[in-house]
Amino acid sequence: MTDLIQMGELAKAAKYKLQNLTSVQKNHALIAVADALCGHSSYILAENAKDIQKGEENGMHPGLLDRLRLTEGRIEAMADGLRQIAELPDPVGEIMETFERPNGLKIQKKRVPMGVIGIIYESRPNVTADAFGLCFKTGNAVILKGGSDAIFSNTAIETVIRAALQSMEITADAIQLIKDTDRSVTAAFMKLNQYVDVLIPRGGAGLIRSVVQNSTIPVIETGTGNCHIYVDEYADIEMAVKVIFNAKTQRIGVCNACESLVVHKNIRAAFLPKLKAALDEKNVEFRADESTMEILDGCIPVTEEDYGTEFLDYILSVKTVESTKEAIEHINRYNTGHSDAVITENEENALAFLNGVDAACVYWNASTRFTDGFEFGFGAEIGISTQKLHARGPMGLKELTAYKYTICGNGQIRG
Amino acid sequence: MTDLIQMGELAKAAKYKLQNLTSVQKNHALIAVADALCGHSSYILAENAKDIQKGEENGMHPGLLDRLRLTEGRIEAMADGLRQIAELPDPVGEIMETFERPNGLKIQKKRVPMGVIGIIYESRPNVTADAFGLCFKTGNAVILKGGSDAIFSNTAIETVIRAALQSMEITADAIQLIKDTDRSVTAAFMKLNQYVDVLIPRGGAGLIRSVVQNSTIPVIETGTGNCHIYVDEYADIEMAVKVIFNAKTQRIGVCNACESLVVHKNIRAAFLPKLKAALDEKNVEFRADESTMEILDGCIPVTEEDYGTEFLDYILSVKTVESTKEAIEHINRYNTGHSDAVITENEENALAFLNGVDAACVYWNASTRFTDGFEFGFGAEIGISTQKLHARGPMGLKELTAYKYTICGNGQIRG
Repeated sequence: MTDLIQMGELAKAAKYKLQNLTSVQKNHALIAVADALCGHSSYILAENAKDIQKGEENGMHPGLLDRLRLTEGRIEAMADGLRQIAELPDPVGEIMETFERPNGLKIQKKRVPMGVIGIIYESRPNVTADAFGLCFKTGNAVILKGGSDAIFSNTAIETVIRAALQSMEITADAIQLIKDTDRSVTAAFMKLNQYVDVLIPRGGAGLIRSVVQNSTIPVIETGTGNCHIYVDEYADIEMAVKVIFNAKTQRIGVCNACESLVVHKNIRAAFLPKLKAALDEKNVEFRADESTMEILDGCIPVTEEDYGTEFLDYILSVKTVESTKEAIEHINRYNTGHSDAVITENEENALAFLNGVDAACVYWNASTRFTDGFEFGFGAEIGISTQKLHARGPMGLKELTAYKYTICGNGQIRG
Repeated sequence: MTDLIQMGELAKAAKYKLQNLTSVQKNHALIAVADALCGHSSYILAENAKDIQKGEENGMHPGLLDRLRLTEGRIEAMADGLRQIAELPDPVGEIMETFERPNGLKIQKKRVPMGVIGIIYESRPNVTADAFGLCFKTGNAVILKGGSDAIFSNTAIETVIRAALQSMEITADAIQLIKDTDRSVTAAFMKLNQYVDVLIPRGGAGLIRSVVQNSTIPVIETGTGNCHIYVDEYADIEMAVKVIFNAKTQRIGVCNACESLVVHKNIRAAFLPKLKAALDEKNVEFRADESTMEILDGCIPVTEEDYGTEFLDYILSVKTVESTKEAIEHINRYNTGHSDAVITENEENALAFLNGVDAACVYWNASTRFTDGFEFGFGAEIGISTQKLHARGPMGLKELTAYKYTICGNGQIRG
């Protein structure tokens, strides 16, 4: 059985070394790791083939098999991801505030690494390299627990990364992979508060729920997106069709895809047939309320459950409302705090929506698909936070850091 | 039995109203609530007397009885606390960042209320008014669960606050108190993720541990302080004695009091007798390692457990080290991430300490007692965070807020 305490001790020892690395040292190491992944691609592919074979034998879903499968190109893409992280600015060490108190104490608020980050993820081997890169660049040690279906692939990637770090005289314990696939180990990992500062689950809604419910370590909840687009009575209809077509169909399996349409009753007759015509091209199924079905044929009656569902499929729920206020209330009832948009030419309604909708990212006249670290200009991200504590929306490098106060005096005591 | 779902719905409805209040409205309401508490002091005192009587009958510890007891003066102090919060700047609405992407999307990062904050605390009725004030000023609805020993006092304070809000035409559900004293209700409250955005425990180490272990809502861990002071070989001995005397004895029951002394072997002979002489005045018990006992009489041998204990008493553990590096390692092994200090005239050692010690607040030549919202100039605080996620150290108003991104476009879609 995995000795999690020992892994915790090694990670803790590593974090004190990693926090002292310069940006140049970290960037050189990231590039060396990238080169090592490419240089050892045949080893990684051979190990990956074992996972694929096991998956095929177990009748794994073709979609999951595809996510699990590595190729030369995909290893090259992993390496490129690390090279991109090397090029991003290093947030560690930034002086966030400096102030002096009347008693002469000089206080600085300084950005520091979190310490030890835990990542629990599903059977996507690319996450192994990606999560390492983001944590390493921010001076954090990472302990990874990947899906058991990818254990050979993840172990191979970890082995190559550790060897590359060692050759740079950097502690290999910057990355540690939990290789035990027993569920009880994962359960114990989620309670390793003494060593792990934050736990980030990456995967589907079920994985995230399980981590939120079982972890005693602070968790950052990411990635569940029941995203809405509200077409206001003052919408530009062509824009609304274009934006919804993009948000619904450009990539259906992602958290920032549109799942639900909210439409003002005064525009539905002019707008809905045009939208349906566009989405028919992709065979999008409409799950609609009665008011919509008066206008559109071929809809399926929507249920309460549909409104709360992230379909990740060619399905769109539809709700008719009588006001912007009702739209905001509906969205705040069913959204997951990820991304919601309003399409309108009316500034007052737009501002009410931007202010009233409770989500990480609220859009006016744009596709929800832009909620993404690269699209925001942050670079690679560890996920999209849907909680309010610490970070909200795309989590780039800065969101993987904490801060500390240093206070310098000349013998001050409290009176 | 308390209907927590209903309380959650009421808090959710309230948060949308509170987030739209102006600073002026909030400040007027805080002053009105302060006046109401003073105006209804005889009612509050009568209800408090019931708690005190019950406490006396149950043989409550005199220290706890004192914390529970209200007086005209203490009610006035609660009211003053609210008036002070009214005078602090309102962080809500601050534009934290504005940027435009190459595709023309205009992105704003804006400070917003958290939403609904849960507070679990012990039998200190003043926390009821204090926590309400901080949450209200930051536009949050608060659900409180106080100690059952203070139920009459807390209910009276809640009643007065709700009535005062109502008279200002502000939703009374800005504050809701869970009145059910059954432990199962507290357990269910800690899993009310659908409604509560963050849970903050205020109280002793046992309460905080219980919340961390049982809550599925994101928690901010506060207040456990096993604070160290390291006396380096290059310390100014008089300063070291003065600072430790202050940090150890000025107020023993607080989280920023010094619990452990770490001393360089080269200074112990000159320093320890002077420190002992000073602390003898307060009968401070020394729990010391062998190296210290060679120099000082009257010490009790220290145990491993002592090094990890927040005494909150006239007790000091003592550890001798051979280097700054060993001091840092010892502190990082036993501290709680709260506040630690170095006393030295050597800049190199000081910087190594400030950089190497993993704590919210790291001091050079000053008392750890300054870790406090008022001392930092933040004003009233909800607690001292000892975790790294979201907030670290004194948590003022800003730390009770989250942010959201608003993104304005003209029909942008993702390619």
